Amino acid sequence: MPNITVEIFEGRTLDQRRQFVEGITEAAVKAFGIDPEGVRITFFEIGRQDLARGGRLFSDKAAPASTGEKP
Amino acid sequence: MPNITVEIFEGRTLDQRRQFVEGITEAAVKAFGIDPEGVRITFFEIGRQDLARGGRLFSDKAAPASTGEKP
Amino acid sequence: MPNITVEIFEGRTLDQRRQFVEGITEAAVKAFGIDPEGVRITFFEIGRQDLARGGRLFSDKAAPASTGEKP
Amino acid sequence: MPNITVEIFEGRTLDQRRQFVEGITEAAVKAFGIDPEGVRITFFEIGRQDLARGGRLFSDKAAPASTGEKP
Amino acid sequence: MPNITVEIFEGRTLDQRRQFVEGITEAAVKAFGIDPEGVRITFFEIGRQDLARGGRLFSDKAAPASTGEKP
Amino acid sequence: MPNITVEIFEGRTLDQRRQFVEGITEAAVKAFGIDPEGVRITFFEIGRQDLARGGRLFSDKAAPASTGEKP
Repeated sequence: MPNITVEIFEGRTLDQRRQFVEGITEAAVKAFGIDPEGVRITFFEIGRQDLARGGRLFSDKAAPASTGEKP
Repeated sequence: MPNITVEIFEGRTLDQRRQFVEGITEAAVKAFGIDPEGVRITFFEIGRQDLARGGRLFSDKAAPASTGEKP
Repeated sequence: MPNITVEIFEGRTLDQRRQFVEGITEAAVKAFGIDPEGVRITFFEIGRQDLARGGRLFSDKAAPASTGEKP
Repeated sequence: MPNITVEIFEGRTLDQRRQFVEGITEAAVKAFGIDPEGVRITFFEIGRQDLARGGRLFSDKAAPASTGEKP
Repeated sequence: MPNITVEIFEGRTLDQRRQFVEGITEAAVKAFGIDPEGVRITFFEIGRQDLARGGRLFSDKAAPASTGEKP
Repeated sequence: MPNITVEIFEGRTLDQRRQFVEGITEAAVKAFGIDPEGVRITFFEIGRQDLARGGRLFSDKAAPASTGEKP
Protein backbone atom coordinates (compact mmCIF):
# COMPACT_ATOMS: atom_id res chain seq x y z
CA MET A 1 0.00 0.00 0.00
CA PRO A 2 -0.85 2.57 -1.09
CA ASN A 3 -2.44 1.16 -4.21
CA ILE A 4 -2.95 4.06 -6.64
CA THR A 5 -5.02 4.18 -9.83
CA VAL A 6 -4.34 7.05 -12.25
CA GLU A 7 -6.79 7.92 -15.04
CA ILE A 8 -5.02 10.17 -17.54
CA PHE A 9 -5.98 11.50 -20.97
CA GLU A 10 -4.61 9.57 -23.95
CA GLY A 11 -1.47 11.08 -25.46
CA ARG A 12 0.84 11.45 -22.44
CA THR A 13 4.37 10.21 -23.16
CA LEU A 14 6.19 7.39 -21.35
CA ASP A 15 8.64 9.93 -19.99
CA GLN A 16 5.77 11.95 -18.47
CA ARG A 17 4.56 8.73 -16.84
CA ARG A 18 8.05 7.96 -15.55
CA GLN A 19 8.38 11.44 -14.04
CA PHE A 20 4.91 11.24 -12.46
CA VAL A 21 5.50 7.75 -11.03
CA GLU A 22 8.75 8.92 -9.42
CA GLY A 23 7.02 11.99 -7.98
CA ILE A 24 4.07 10.03 -6.55
CA THR A 25 6.36 7.39 -5.04
CA GLU A 26 8.57 10.03 -3.43
CA ALA A 27 5.48 11.81 -2.05
CA ALA A 28 4.20 8.53 -0.57
CA VAL A 29 7.55 7.71 1.05
CA LYS A 30 7.69 11.21 2.61
CA ALA A 31 4.05 11.26 3.76
CA PHE A 32 3.72 7.67 5.05
CA GLY A 33 7.33 6.68 5.79
CA ILE A 34 7.04 3.46 3.78
CA ASP A 35 9.28 1.42 1.47
CA PRO A 36 9.08 2.69 -2.15
CA GLU A 37 8.42 -0.92 -3.22
CA GLY A 38 5.14 -0.68 -1.30
CA VAL A 39 3.84 2.04 -3.66
CA ARG A 40 1.83 0.44 -6.49
CA ILE A 41 0.51 2.60 -9.38
CA THR A 42 -1.75 1.58 -12.30
CA PHE A 43 -2.50 3.86 -15.29
CA PHE A 44 -5.74 3.84 -17.24
CA GLU A 45 -5.84 5.91 -20.45
CA ILE A 46 -9.06 7.86 -21.04
CA GLY A 47 -10.11 9.32 -24.42
CA ARG A 48 -11.90 12.68 -24.60
CA GLN A 49 -14.98 10.78 -25.84
CA ASP A 50 -14.86 8.72 -22.63
CA LEU A 51 -15.20 11.64 -20.21
CA ALA A 52 -18.13 14.01 -19.66
CA ARG A 53 -18.93 16.91 -17.36
CA GLY A 54 -21.96 19.21 -17.35
CA GLY A 55 -23.84 16.76 -19.59
CA ARG A 56 -21.34 16.94 -22.49
CA LEU A 57 -18.54 14.67 -23.71
CA PHE A 58 -15.10 16.33 -23.63
CA SER A 59 -14.70 15.36 -27.30
CA ASP A 60 -17.64 17.70 -28.02
CA LYS A 61 -16.06 20.61 -26.12
CA ALA A 62 -13.44 22.98 -27.52
CA ALA A 63 -9.92 21.69 -26.59
CA PRO A 64 -9.05 23.29 -23.21
CA ALA A 65 -5.79 25.33 -22.94
CA SER A 66 -3.07 22.69 -22.33
CA THR A 67 -2.62 23.80 -18.73
CA GLY A 68 -6.27 24.48 -18.03
CA GLU A 69 -7.79 21.01 -17.97
CA LYS A 70 -10.08 20.73 -14.96
CA PRO A 71 -12.18 17.65 -15.92
CA MET B 1 -7.49 15.02 -15.22
CA PRO B 2 -5.65 13.17 -13.90
CA ASN B 3 -8.26 11.48 -11.74
CA ILE B 4 -6.43 9.55 -9.01
CA THR B 5 -7.79 6.92 -6.60
CA VAL B 6 -5.65 6.12 -3.55
CA GLU B 7 -6.30 2.98 -1.48
CA ILE B 8 -4.48 3.36 1.86
CA PHE B 9 -4.50 1.32 5.07
CA GLU B 10 -6.77 2.58 7.84
CA GLY B 11 -5.00 4.67 10.48
CA ARG B 12 -3.20 7.31 8.39
CA THR B 13 -3.62 10.81 9.82
CA LEU B 14 -5.24 13.79 8.07
CA ASP B 15 -1.86 15.51 8.04
CA GLN B 16 -0.32 12.54 6.22
CA ARG B 17 -3.13 12.82 3.65
CA ARG B 18 -2.57 16.56 3.30
CA GLN B 19 1.16 16.03 2.72
CA PHE B 20 0.53 13.23 0.21
CA VAL B 21 -2.11 15.22 -1.70
CA GLU B 22 0.28 18.19 -2.01
CA GLY B 23 3.06 15.88 -3.21
CA ILE B 24 0.91 14.09 -5.82
CA THR B 25 -0.50 17.40 -7.13
CA GLU B 26 2.99 18.91 -7.42
CA ALA B 27 4.22 15.78 -9.22
CA ALA B 28 1.29 15.97 -11.68
CA VAL B 29 1.87 19.68 -12.39
CA LYS B 30 5.59 19.01 -13.07
CA ALA B 31 5.02 15.87 -15.19
CA PHE B 32 1.99 17.01 -17.24
CA GLY B 33 2.21 20.81 -17.09
CA ILE B 34 -1.39 21.16 -15.99
CA ASP B 35 -3.36 23.40 -13.62
CA PRO B 36 -3.29 22.03 -10.02
CA GLU B 37 -7.09 22.38 -9.99
CA GLY B 38 -7.16 19.68 -12.67
CA VAL B 39 -5.69 17.10 -10.26
CA ARG B 40 -8.47 15.15 -8.55
CA ILE B 41 -7.68 12.63 -5.78
CA THR B 42 -10.04 10.26 -3.91
CA PHE B 43 -9.00 8.21 -0.84
CA PHE B 44 -10.43 4.80 0.05
CA GLU B 45 -9.46 3.40 3.44
CA ILE B 46 -8.65 -0.35 3.48
CA GLY B 47 -8.57 -2.51 6.63
CA ARG B 48 -5.97 -5.28 7.01
CA GLN B 49 -8.88 -7.77 6.87
CA ASP B 50 -9.82 -6.31 3.47
CA LEU B 51 -6.52 -7.06 1.72
CA ALA B 52 -4.95 -10.41 0.86
CA ARG B 53 -1.82 -11.61 -0.90
CA GLY B 54 -0.46 -15.16 -1.30
CA GLY B 55 -3.85 -16.58 -0.27
CA ARG B 56 -3.88 -14.94 3.20
CA LEU B 57 -5.60 -11.87 4.67
CA PHE B 58 -3.16 -9.22 5.93
CA SER B 59 -5.01 -9.31 9.28
CA ASP B 60 -3.82 -12.93 9.60
CA LYS B 61 -0.18 -12.01 8.88
CA ALA B 62 2.27 -10.65 11.45
CA ALA B 63 2.23 -6.81 11.31
CA PRO B 64 4.93 -5.80 8.78
CA ALA B 65 7.70 -3.38 9.94
CA SER B 66 6.12 0.11 9.56
CA THR B 67 8.36 0.89 6.59
CA GLY B 68 8.26 -2.56 5.06
CA GLU B 69 4.69 -2.81 3.75
CA LYS B 70 4.70 -4.21 0.24
CA PRO B 71 1.04 -5.31 -0.10
CA MET C 1 -24.65 -3.87 -18.57
CA PRO C 2 -24.18 -1.02 -18.10
CA ASN C 3 -22.46 -1.46 -14.76
CA ILE C 4 -22.39 1.95 -13.07
CA THR C 5 -20.41 3.08 -10.01
CA VAL C 6 -21.52 6.29 -8.30
CA GLU C 7 -19.24 8.11 -5.82
CA ILE C 8 -21.35 10.59 -3.86
CA PHE C 9 -20.65 12.79 -0.83
CA GLU C 10 -21.79 11.41 2.53
CA GLY C 11 -25.12 12.80 3.70
CA ARG C 12 -27.41 12.15 0.72
CA THR C 13 -30.76 10.64 1.75
CA LEU C 14 -32.14 7.23 0.65
CA ASP C 15 -34.89 9.06 -1.22
CA GLN C 16 -32.30 11.05 -3.19
CA ARG C 17 -30.63 7.74 -4.08
CA ARG C 18 -33.96 6.21 -5.10
CA GLN C 19 -34.75 9.19 -7.35
CA PHE C 20 -31.25 9.12 -8.88
CA VAL C 21 -31.34 5.34 -9.49
CA GLU C 22 -34.70 5.65 -11.26
CA GLY C 23 -33.37 8.54 -13.39
CA ILE C 24 -30.15 6.73 -14.40
CA THR C 25 -32.05 3.51 -15.22
CA GLU C 26 -34.57 5.40 -17.36
CA ALA C 27 -31.74 7.23 -19.16
CA ALA C 28 -29.99 3.91 -19.88
CA VAL C 29 -33.17 2.28 -21.22
CA LYS C 30 -33.77 5.28 -23.54
CA ALA C 31 -30.14 5.58 -24.72
CA PHE C 32 -29.30 1.86 -25.16
CA GLY C 33 -32.74 0.24 -25.60
CA ILE C 34 -32.04 -2.35 -22.92
CA ASP C 35 -34.00 -4.11 -20.17
CA PRO C 36 -34.04 -2.03 -16.93
CA GLU C 37 -32.91 -5.19 -15.10
CA GLY C 38 -29.67 -4.94 -17.07
CA VAL C 39 -28.80 -1.61 -15.40
CA ARG C 40 -26.62 -2.21 -12.31
CA ILE C 41 -25.65 0.69 -10.01
CA THR C 42 -23.33 0.68 -6.96
CA PHE C 43 -22.95 3.66 -4.59
CA PHE C 44 -19.76 4.53 -2.72
CA GLU C 45 -20.02 7.25 -0.08
CA ILE C 46 -17.10 9.72 0.01
CA GLY C 47 -16.30 12.04 2.95
CA ARG C 48 -15.01 15.59 2.34
CA GLN C 49 -11.70 14.44 3.93
CA ASP C 50 -11.50 11.71 1.26
CA LEU C 51 -11.52 14.02 -1.76
CA ALA C 52 -8.94 16.58 -2.89
CA ARG C 53 -8.50 18.96 -5.78
CA GLY C 54 -5.82 21.59 -6.38
CA GLY C 55 -3.65 20.00 -3.66
CA ARG C 56 -6.20 20.49 -0.85
CA LEU C 57 -8.68 18.20 0.91
CA PHE C 58 -12.31 19.31 0.51
CA SER C 59 -12.63 19.16 4.31
CA ASP C 60 -10.06 21.98 4.43
CA LYS C 61 -12.00 24.13 1.95
CA ALA C 62 -14.96 26.36 2.81
CA ALA C 63 -18.25 24.40 2.22
CA PRO C 64 -19.27 25.14 -1.41
CA ALA C 65 -22.79 26.57 -2.06
CA SER C 66 -25.06 23.46 -2.09
CA THR C 67 -25.59 23.72 -5.84
CA GLY C 68 -22.05 24.76 -6.70
CA GLU C 69 -20.08 21.58 -6.01
CA LYS C 70 -17.71 20.91 -8.88
CA PRO C 71 -15.28 18.44 -7.25
CA MET D 1 -19.55 15.07 -7.26
CA PRO D 2 -21.07 12.74 -8.09
CA ASN D 3 -18.23 11.00 -9.85
CA ILE D 4 -19.74 8.26 -12.05
CA THR D 5 -18.01 5.37 -13.83
CA VAL D 6 -19.95 3.60 -16.58
CA GLU D 7 -18.85 0.20 -17.91
CA ILE D 8 -20.65 -0.45 -21.21
CA PHE D 9 -20.30 -3.13 -23.88
CA GLU D 10 -18.16 -2.23 -26.90
CA GLY D 11 -20.17 -1.07 -29.91
CA ARG D 12 -22.35 1.70 -28.46
CA THR D 13 -22.39 4.83 -30.65
CA LEU D 14 -21.23 8.32 -29.62
CA ASP D 15 -24.83 9.53 -29.94
CA GLN D 16 -25.97 6.85 -27.48
CA ARG D 17 -23.27 8.08 -25.08
CA ARG D 18 -24.33 11.70 -25.57
CA GLN D 19 -27.97 10.81 -24.84
CA PHE D 20 -27.00 8.77 -21.76
CA VAL D 21 -24.68 11.49 -20.39
CA GLU D 22 -27.47 14.08 -20.72
CA GLY D 23 -29.94 11.75 -18.99
CA ILE D 24 -27.59 10.92 -16.07
CA THR D 25 -26.67 14.60 -15.58
CA GLU D 26 -30.33 15.63 -15.58
CA ALA D 27 -31.14 12.85 -13.08
CA ALA D 28 -28.32 14.00 -10.78
CA VAL D 29 -29.41 17.66 -10.92
CA LYS D 30 -33.00 16.65 -10.04
CA ALA D 31 -32.05 14.19 -7.28
CA PHE D 32 -29.23 16.16 -5.59
CA GLY D 33 -29.98 19.77 -6.59
CA ILE D 34 -26.44 20.36 -7.81
CA ASP D 35 -24.75 22.25 -10.66
CA PRO D 36 -24.58 20.10 -13.85
CA GLU D 37 -20.86 20.94 -14.02
CA GLY D 38 -20.47 18.97 -10.79
CA VAL D 39 -21.54 15.73 -12.54
CA ARG D 40 -18.48 13.84 -13.82
CA ILE D 41 -18.88 10.67 -15.93
CA THR D 42 -16.18 8.29 -17.25
CA PHE D 43 -16.88 5.47 -19.74
CA PHE D 44 -14.98 2.18 -19.86
CA GLU D 45 -15.70 -0.08 -22.83
CA ILE D 46 -15.96 -3.81 -22.01
CA GLY D 47 -15.72 -6.62 -24.59
CA ARG D 48 -17.88 -9.74 -24.29
CA GLN D 49 -14.66 -11.70 -23.64
CA ASP D 50 -13.98 -9.38 -20.67
CA LEU D 51 -17.17 -10.17 -18.75
CA ALA D 52 -18.29 -13.42 -17.13
CA ARG D 53 -21.25 -14.62 -15.09
CA GLY D 54 -22.11 -18.11 -13.87
CA GLY D 55 -18.55 -19.25 -14.62
CA ARG D 56 -18.70 -18.47 -18.36
CA LEU D 57 -17.38 -15.60 -20.51
CA PHE D 58 -20.14 -13.68 -22.31
CA SER D 59 -18.24 -14.27 -25.57
CA ASP D 60 -18.91 -17.99 -25.06
CA LYS D 61 -22.66 -17.45 -24.52
CA ALA D 62 -25.23 -17.07 -27.31
CA ALA D 63 -25.75 -13.32 -28.05
CA PRO D 64 -28.58 -12.15 -25.72
CA ALA D 65 -31.66 -10.49 -27.33
CA SER D 66 -30.55 -6.84 -27.78
CA THR D 67 -32.93 -5.67 -25.05
CA GLY D 68 -32.39 -8.61 -22.73
CA GLU D 69 -28.82 -8.09 -21.48
CA LYS D 70 -28.71 -8.63 -17.75
CA PRO D 71 -24.94 -9.13 -17.24
CA MET E 1 -0.73 -9.45 -10.89
CA PRO E 2 -3.53 -10.28 -11.05
CA ASN E 3 -4.91 -7.46 -8.95
CA ILE E 4 -8.45 -8.43 -7.93
CA THR E 5 -11.18 -6.27 -6.37
CA VAL E 6 -14.10 -8.07 -4.74
CA GLU E 7 -17.34 -6.23 -3.91
CA ILE E 8 -19.36 -8.37 -1.48
CA PHE E 9 -22.52 -7.74 0.54
CA GLU E 10 -22.00 -6.72 4.18
CA GLY E 11 -22.33 -9.60 6.63
CA ARG E 12 -19.90 -12.16 5.25
CA THR E 13 -17.66 -13.69 7.94
CA LEU E 14 -13.85 -13.53 8.06
CA ASP E 15 -13.76 -17.30 7.58
CA GLN E 16 -15.80 -16.98 4.37
CA ARG E 17 -13.29 -14.38 3.18
CA ARG E 18 -10.37 -16.63 4.10
CA GLN E 19 -11.90 -19.55 2.18
CA PHE E 20 -12.67 -17.34 -0.85
CA VAL E 21 -9.17 -15.80 -0.88
CA GLU E 22 -7.59 -19.27 -0.82
CA GLY E 23 -9.87 -20.43 -3.65
CA ILE E 24 -9.19 -17.38 -5.87
CA THR E 25 -5.43 -17.62 -5.28
CA GLU E 26 -5.41 -21.34 -6.13
CA ALA E 27 -7.47 -20.65 -9.28
CA ALA E 28 -5.02 -17.93 -10.36
CA VAL E 29 -1.97 -20.15 -9.78
CA LYS E 30 -3.58 -22.96 -11.85
CA ALA E 31 -4.80 -20.69 -14.68
CA PHE E 32 -1.75 -18.38 -15.03
CA GLY E 33 1.07 -20.46 -13.54
CA ILE E 34 2.19 -17.64 -11.25
CA ASP E 35 3.54 -17.30 -7.71
CA PRO E 36 0.68 -17.12 -5.14
CA GLU E 37 2.38 -14.01 -3.72
CA GLY E 38 1.59 -12.33 -7.04
CA VAL E 39 -2.17 -12.63 -6.41
CA ARG E 40 -3.48 -9.45 -4.72
CA ILE E 41 -7.13 -9.25 -3.54
CA THR E 42 -9.00 -6.25 -2.03
CA PHE E 43 -12.50 -6.53 -0.51
CA PHE E 44 -15.07 -3.73 -0.55
CA GLU E 45 -18.22 -4.28 1.54
CA ILE E 46 -21.48 -3.15 -0.08
CA GLY E 47 -24.75 -2.55 1.80
CA ARG E 48 -28.10 -3.48 0.22
CA GLN E 49 -28.87 0.27 0.13
CA ASP E 50 -25.73 0.77 -1.95
CA LEU E 51 -26.71 -1.51 -4.83
CA ALA E 52 -29.53 -1.14 -7.35
CA ARG E 53 -30.81 -3.05 -10.36
CA GLY E 54 -33.91 -2.46 -12.49
CA GLY E 55 -34.25 1.05 -11.01
CA ARG E 56 -34.65 -0.14 -7.39
CA LEU E 57 -32.28 -0.30 -4.40
CA PHE E 58 -31.74 -3.85 -3.11
CA SER E 59 -32.72 -2.61 0.36
CA ASP E 60 -36.18 -1.91 -1.10
CA LYS E 61 -36.50 -5.42 -2.58
CA ALA E 62 -37.63 -8.51 -0.64
CA ALA E 63 -34.51 -10.33 0.70
CA PRO E 64 -33.54 -12.89 -2.00
CA ALA E 65 -33.22 -16.58 -1.02
CA SER E 66 -29.68 -16.86 0.41
CA THR E 67 -28.50 -18.84 -2.61
CA GLY E 68 -30.41 -16.85 -5.19
CA GLU E 69 -28.61 -13.51 -5.23
CA LYS E 70 -28.01 -12.44 -8.78
CA PRO E 71 -27.33 -8.67 -8.23
CA MET F 1 -22.80 -10.40 -5.81
CA PRO F 2 -19.90 -10.80 -5.52
CA ASN F 3 -18.90 -8.37 -8.23
CA ILE F 4 -15.24 -9.04 -9.07
CA THR F 5 -12.81 -6.93 -11.12
CA VAL F 6 -9.64 -8.63 -12.35
CA GLU F 7 -6.67 -6.61 -13.63
CA ILE F 8 -4.36 -8.95 -15.54
CA PHE F 9 -1.27 -8.37 -17.70
CA GLU F 10 -1.86 -8.27 -21.46
CA GLY F 11 -1.11 -11.54 -23.23
CA ARG F 12 -3.18 -14.05 -21.25
CA THR F 13 -5.13 -16.44 -23.48
CA LEU F 14 -8.93 -16.85 -23.58
CA ASP F 15 -8.51 -20.37 -22.24
CA GLN F 16 -6.58 -19.04 -19.24
CA ARG F 17 -9.45 -16.61 -18.63
CA ARG F 18 -12.00 -19.41 -18.97
CA GLN F 19 -10.12 -21.58 -16.45
CA PHE F 20 -9.73 -18.65 -14.02
CA VAL F 21 -13.41 -17.64 -14.28
CA GLU F 22 -14.49 -21.22 -13.53
CA GLY F 23 -12.12 -21.37 -10.55
CA ILE F 24 -13.23 -18.03 -9.06
CA THR F 25 -16.92 -18.91 -9.50
CA GLU F 26 -16.45 -22.30 -7.85
CA ALA F 27 -14.54 -20.65 -4.97
CA ALA F 28 -17.38 -18.12 -4.49
CA VAL F 29 -20.07 -20.81 -4.51
CA LYS F 30 -18.14 -22.83 -1.88
CA ALA F 31 -17.28 -19.83 0.34
CA PHE F 32 -20.61 -17.95 0.20
CA GLY F 33 -23.12 -20.66 -0.73
CA ILE F 34 -24.55 -18.61 -3.58
CA ASP F 35 -25.89 -19.28 -7.07
CA PRO F 36 -23.04 -19.31 -9.67
CA GLU F 37 -25.12 -16.85 -11.74
CA GLY F 38 -24.63 -14.36 -8.90
CA VAL F 39 -20.86 -14.29 -9.50
CA ARG F 40 -19.95 -11.44 -11.88
CA ILE F 41 -16.37 -11.00 -13.14
CA THR F 42 -14.91 -8.21 -15.31
CA PHE F 43 -11.38 -8.32 -16.80
CA PHE F 44 -9.21 -5.27 -17.43
CA GLU F 45 -5.99 -5.83 -19.40
CA ILE F 46 -2.94 -3.92 -18.11
CA GLY F 47 0.25 -3.34 -20.13
CA ARG F 48 3.68 -3.41 -18.45
CA GLN F 49 3.93 0.35 -19.21
CA ASP F 50 0.70 0.85 -17.24
CA LEU F 51 1.94 -0.56 -13.94
CA ALA F 52 4.65 0.77 -11.60
CA ARG F 53 6.14 -0.21 -8.25
CA GLY F 54 9.08 1.27 -6.38
CA GLY F 55 8.95 4.36 -8.63
CA ARG F 56 9.57 2.45 -11.89
CA LEU F 57 7.31 1.28 -14.73
CA PHE F 58 7.29 -2.52 -15.17
CA SER F 59 8.15 -1.96 -18.84
CA ASP F 60 11.45 -0.47 -17.63
CA LYS F 61 12.22 -3.47 -15.40
CA ALA F 62 13.81 -6.73 -16.61
CA ALA F 63 11.00 -9.23 -17.49
CA PRO F 64 10.31 -11.21 -14.26
CA ALA F 65 10.52 -15.06 -14.40
CA SER F 66 7.09 -16.10 -15.78
CA THR F 67 6.07 -17.53 -12.40
CA GLY F 68 7.64 -14.83 -10.29
CA GLU F 69 5.43 -11.81 -10.94
CA LYS F 70 4.65 -10.06 -7.67
CA PRO F 71 3.47 -6.62 -8.98
